[in-house]
Amino acid sequence: MEVTVASPTQQELQQIVDDIAGRFVLETERGAVADYIPELAKVDINQFGMAIVPIHGDPVQAGDANTRFSIQSISKVFTLTLALKKVGVNLWRRVGREPSGNPFNSIVQLEYEHGVPRNPFINAGAIVVADVILARQTAGEAISEIVGFMRSLAHDDTVDVDVEVARSEARTGFRNFALGNFMRAEGNLDHAVEEVLEVYFNQCAIAMDCCQLARAGCYLADAGNNGAHEHSVITPARSRRINALMLTCGHYDASGEFAFRVGIPGKSGVGGGILGIVPGVAAVTAWCPGLDDKGNSVLASRAFEELVRRTGWSVFGPLPGALD
Amino acid sequence: MEVTVASPTQQELQQIVDDIAGRFVLETERGAVADYIPELAKVDINQFGMAIVPIHGDPVQAGDANTRFSIQSISKVFTLTLALKKVGVNLWRRVGREPSGNPFNSIVQLEYEHGVPRNPFINAGAIVVADVILARQTAGEAISEIVGFMRSLAHDDTVDVDVEVARSEARTGFRNFALGNFMRAEGNLDHAVEEVLEVYFNQCAIAMDCCQLARAGCYLADAGNNGAHEHSVITPARSRRINALMLTCGHYDASGEFAFRVGIPGKSGVGGGILGIVPGVAAVTAWCPGLDDKGNSVLASRAFEELVRRTGWSVFGPLPGALD
Amino acid sequence: MEVTVASPTQQELQQIVDDIAGRFVLETERGAVADYIPELAKVDINQFGMAIVPIHGDPVQAGDANTRFSIQSISKVFTLTLALKKVGVNLWRRVGREPSGNPFNSIVQLEYEHGVPRNPFINAGAIVVADVILARQTAGEAISEIVGFMRSLAHDDTVDVDVEVARSEARTGFRNFALGNFMRAEGNLDHAVEEVLEVYFNQCAIAMDCCQLARAGCYLADAGNNGAHEHSVITPARSRRINALMLTCGHYDASGEFAFRVGIPGKSGVGGGILGIVPGVAAVTAWCPGLDDKGNSVLASRAFEELVRRTGWSVFGPLPGALD
Amino acid sequence: MEVTVASPTQQELQQIVDDIAGRFVLETERGAVADYIPELAKVDINQFGMAIVPIHGDPVQAGDANTRFSIQSISKVFTLTLALKKVGVNLWRRVGREPSGNPFNSIVQLEYEHGVPRNPFINAGAIVVADVILARQTAGEAISEIVGFMRSLAHDDTVDVDVEVARSEARTGFRNFALGNFMRAEGNLDHAVEEVLEVYFNQCAIAMDCCQLARAGCYLADAGNNGAHEHSVITPARSRRINALMLTCGHYDASGEFAFRVGIPGKSGVGGGILGIVPGVAAVTAWCPGLDDKGNSVLASRAFEELVRRTGWSVFGPLPGALD
Repeated sequence: MEVTVASPTQQELQQIVDDIAGRFVLETERGAVADYIPELAKVDINQFGMAIVPIHGDPVQAGDANTRFSIQSISKVFTLTLALKKVGVNLWRRVGREPSGNPFNSIVQLEYEHGVPRNPFINAGAIVVADVILARQTAGEAISEIVGFMRSLAHDDTVDVDVEVARSEARTGFRNFALGNFMRAEGNLDHAVEEVLEVYFNQCAIAMDCCQLARAGCYLADAGNNGAHEHSVITPARSRRINALMLTCGHYDASGEFAFRVGIPGKSGVGGGILGIVPGVAAVTAWCPGLDDKGNSVLASRAFEELVRRTGWSVFGPLPGALD
Repeated sequence: MEVTVASPTQQELQQIVDDIAGRFVLETERGAVADYIPELAKVDINQFGMAIVPIHGDPVQAGDANTRFSIQSISKVFTLTLALKKVGVNLWRRVGREPSGNPFNSIVQLEYEHGVPRNPFINAGAIVVADVILARQTAGEAISEIVGFMRSLAHDDTVDVDVEVARSEARTGFRNFALGNFMRAEGNLDHAVEEVLEVYFNQCAIAMDCCQLARAGCYLADAGNNGAHEHSVITPARSRRINALMLTCGHYDASGEFAFRVGIPGKSGVGGGILGIVPGVAAVTAWCPGLDDKGNSVLASRAFEELVRRTGWSVFGPLPGALD
Repeated sequence: MEVTVASPTQQELQQIVDDIAGRFVLETERGAVADYIPELAKVDINQFGMAIVPIHGDPVQAGDANTRFSIQSISKVFTLTLALKKVGVNLWRRVGREPSGNPFNSIVQLEYEHGVPRNPFINAGAIVVADVILARQTAGEAISEIVGFMRSLAHDDTVDVDVEVARSEARTGFRNFALGNFMRAEGNLDHAVEEVLEVYFNQCAIAMDCCQLARAGCYLADAGNNGAHEHSVITPARSRRINALMLTCGHYDASGEFAFRVGIPGKSGVGGGILGIVPGVAAVTAWCPGLDDKGNSVLASRAFEELVRRTGWSVFGPLPGALD
Repeated sequence: MEVTVASPTQQELQQIVDDIAGRFVLETERGAVADYIPELAKVDINQFGMAIVPIHGDPVQAGDANTRFSIQSISKVFTLTLALKKVGVNLWRRVGREPSGNPFNSIVQLEYEHGVPRNPFINAGAIVVADVILARQTAGEAISEIVGFMRSLAHDDTVDVDVEVARSEARTGFRNFALGNFMRAEGNLDHAVEEVLEVYFNQCAIAMDCCQLARAGCYLADAGNNGAHEHSVITPARSRRINALMLTCGHYDASGEFAFRVGIPGKSGVGGGILGIVPGVAAVTAWCPGLDDKGNSVLASRAFEELVRRTGWSVFGPLPGALD
């Protein structure tokens, strides 16, 4: 098998952004900004950016690629990486690796499966991952460790938590408190629920722009190496496995849909961002704050579809061509 | 990106088979033969075969690769293909594309989602697919159409239904009758439940060996083309999407696990077979009748893990190397 | 404790019927006639009757108390009685005695509890009861036995199955076929699903009027004796226990509501009838075909409320007086 | 209807206690003391008492009827009464009146029904009731109000909270914190979860003996009047309705069983107590700390069965006689 796939040029990426933006001109077509967290509800829906960081070659960007947004659940990819570095395969005693089915069932399954969340990307699973990171340190130290990890991956020391968003989440995150207490009752949290959620709310409130986030995610495209092979973040095998989890579980109850329509590992957040991984090729970020009813960005999803249509970057058939 | 991945030689495949067989010598380690269908319970657990049909190059095989077995749920990949050829995207009005969560929830979800199965690879979804194929023909004609399709894909006119197995399923398939009647109550079956299940039970009872099955599945590795580009079975886009569904939903409630450990689209059946697709490269079949508690063949799963470990064929990172 | 409660006179009952009918003049206020069974959908909603058969004293009736209607689920009280006579406490190995929670959960619970229905008054439970009655006889014989039992209890040999309704149910009862097949899969049905449901559909299709039905149910008010102590239908203890089941499980997912508002054991059917038992005092039937969204007759429910308000017949406090 | 039922004499009650105690001599037959609350786990299982407070006539008692125990969920009957006095029928907008099905489903149902608990006797429902009582006062004041209500009903100013038990519950009540946060997320709690649970944990930790508790519950037997008609606690209609809820929902997932075997309204607590109401006749308490797997006292349940067998006090058929 010999395949040569060229990464889009700056101009080609701009075309994709213009094309998608042109198809969704009306605000009403762009979905709705997340409103359950007051701070997120203030974000202007008329923003849209993309960035590609290829393993080989120069990064390209288009649109609002330098505007920071709340990465929210995309942070779960990075805390999972950290937790695997800390406890390795022992993590899988406390969290599963299976898709979770529809949202209605999430709490049912948690109860049916005795407090072991189905995967590390549903909230319950990410809360367990935060509990792992909290071991032998304070919540403040754990948050610093996560932020430091993001800065190192993004090669940018300005990456930080948006404190207003973090506070906003803590004040309204009753459902996460419910999940945390339920898992504590089942013995699957080692620390006080309040502390674990302090870590969790802060990791979700990290603000980054498309360029930073694509750079940070690049190790997953490059077999665990970040920064042009300068250093290994994680082993190739673990890198593959995180990609597998992103593909099967990365988009809430629309994970199958993203795999079906786009065909690359991806993780979305309710801030409107999506991080996509093209194994062996590049990390990609798209962002627009408007969400569909499953909580995934409308324009970012479409942008990925269009990108893969033009490049053939689907892992399910490497030849470019129409997706339909 | 330039990648050259060599397909294993006959000798290398034999090594994999010998290696795995050597690790699971005791019958008790090989899982349990499916016993809910009396005919399947008679199959000798001490059989194990593999076959690889690359897009370019010669097929290779090892072990009991010429012994026919009941393909069971692997048939769902092929009936899905047939149904997409018949009704196209309209199929997705009647069946979803999301993983289904744990088995306990399957019937809950079916009820919660008003008789629309989560995906075409759970039994309820495959029964809807059979209902689609049944349109404008008798059950006998539909079965003939499916068998003819398999023969054409496998380039082998001897492929056929094992009538004893089909009868055995019909006599004991109460749960499938329950699902069928439930969907009929919800208006998601057009034909009599008995007829739809006659088609379904017969498709599951098709008997094929590893070589035939890998050859039949080759179009999914080759962007929809079967038989060295002789003819197109399905469009490249649909081929990719079937692969995506196999990856997210192909192994019952261990689909995430197969994606995590192996990393290629695969579909298993309770006859002990697994069909795996390496997009752009090859179709692979492994078979051993002993199943784990999720209903997937113990040895066939391990054989795929070992194959990918040696070849680096995971779609989540194309470099060979240790998986752990 | 000495309590003297007088049963309503003919005139007093007529007042209740007139009062309730006067409050629900518009068809739109009377609920909706069951339409899932075509034959039931034809019934005129402008019918309303009541009958009281006291243990001591003369029966009284009002309104359309001599018009026959489909007793539907009310039949489950009588088949339960028959099954207890046949197998005694062994019945409780196959069916539970607990309320079932909301309808959404019924099939979940059946799956969670391995095919043992929660109680004999949900459909799954009544299907198991029909399976018990079917032992050592044909479906036709079982139906004859049930009809014969009803005739004997009602002292009226004209009681019979409405054949059109029975056929109508068989043609559209997919959900019951689903339940039956599911329980067969779990090993909780001894006979072919088709035969069991033939019994079940026919018992539900028995047609009786308010007077016949109250007379038939009188043994539950009189410690198991029917017909002024002429003969014992069932022991006093079993009579009490059937009453307990009627109170906790007799009105689908509104059983708690009927207990709360009316306070006597009752069993409703989608034909619009309700049979109520005042232990030690009387059996009462009310009937009007319009149903609320839980499947219980709107006017019949209100009629019972008014009756208990005037007589103080609630088992939860024997003094007459306002219920609110 | 004229019925004369004599309340047991002191001697007759002693016989029941001796009879039941004699049948369960071995500790292993007496169930297990609740161990999820450390303080409760210390209670000696070899204690057993009963008390009857008839409306007319003198109270009788037997066994350890003067030893105080944690009333736990029995408190829910009294807080429900208080909440109904405060907000009347408005309470039913926030909590239902239906049995809840099996425990597995409780949280499912809460989710399915958008945070409205099925009834006021499951934990979620009682937490809503505590939230109602908390209106316009502090947690401390609410606890004082509840304790004052219990003292007034029991005619005994020594009734009080067992502070150790209350603290013990607060430290380990993660599941209740989960429920509280879940309902807060759904908008069905007005106050901070911590405050509501402070009230809830303290009400459960009230310690009373059999005599005090039977006296306190007597108003439910006497149409809402406590203390020989001295004053009305609640209207007759509400009294009846609380009894109805006790009968349908008072014993967790064994409510149907208690109705079936005993046949009177009852409420159990994991402290091992059961309060039973014989409408128009008496309030009864039985207590032994050993619980069955549903959380109900083994000996107390049997004591009620035996009492009703001897007196015929079942509401489902007022004649004494064998229950089987």
